[in-house]
Amino acid sequence: MDINPWYISGFVDGEGSFLVSFSKRSKMGLGIEVRPSFTVSQHARNKEVVCELQRYFQCGSVRFNSRDQTYKYEVRSLNDLVYRILPHFGSHPLRTSKQRDVDMLRHVCHLMISKQHLTRNGIERIIEFSYSMNNLGARRYIKEDLLRMVRR
Amino acid sequence: MDINPWYISGFVDGEGSFLVSFSKRSKMGLGIEVRPSFTVSQHARNKEVVCELQRYFQCGSVRFNSRDQTYKYEVRSLNDLVYRILPHFGSHPLRTSKQRDVDMLRHVCHLMISKQHLTRNGIERIIEFSYSMNNLGARRYIKEDLLRMVRR
Repeated sequence: MDINPWYISGFVDGEGSFLVSFSKRSKMGLGIEVRPSFTVSQHARNKEVVCELQRYFQCGSVRFNSRDQTYKYEVRSLNDLVYRILPHFGSHPLRTSKQRDVDMLRHVCHLMISKQHLTRNGIERIIEFSYSMNNLGARRYIKEDLLRMVRR
Repeated sequence: MDINPWYISGFVDGEGSFLVSFSKRSKMGLGIEVRPSFTVSQHARNKEVVCELQRYFQCGSVRFNSRDQTYKYEVRSLNDLVYRILPHFGSHPLRTSKQRDVDMLRHVCHLMISKQHLTRNGIERIIEFSYSMNNLGARRYIKEDLLRMVRR
């Protein structure tokens, strides 16, 4: 049975993650790289549904993590996020507080499309947006440190 | 926007739980009560989606757990499981290994409908079925103890 677009939204509402992460890149203009992403991880026994996500969205990668025996579907390409992932969650919105993460990711991606992340003012807005998202577990930096870096 | 049946299946595939639990009841024939259930828990911030499940299925209860700040949607009535919950997951099946839990729950419920859980042979089959389900985390008894109880 073909996967239904609403099944995708329901599943992602439980299992998906919309995140903007940051990494130090001394070679880049403001010293910080902005990395928006959409990911869904599942135990190896559910590899098939992870691959179905990739087929449905026609982008992204599937990788195995041997440490926790999971398969992760991940989309990092800005174009794929803007033209393939985010439109789906516009027409088939989430119903939990995670929809707010989708909206924040959309803001950030559109700021990046218009190259705002290369300006000091733009990247500050991106940092503020991103840190208002739910998914704070995997943060490598605290917000104030990032803002200090770009304000140097 | 009305909740779509496929959204429900996607969400439940991530967040739902299909379980058969057991409790000692010395007053009952074989000393063990069989309790099939369907539950979905969410943090308090997502109370609305939990209430939507109740409205969609037209049965079950929603309860707040102050310990972990969650709302739990729960269906324990055998009739509601057989006539309202399980038919949904027949027409809108799950895509992860959790579908196997649905099938096991269906087996067990149908054995109960035909009163097999009141016979020694029937309850042994139910115990075997139930312990082949994924959701083993909340088990109060090990399988061998239950089988020993009903075989006394």
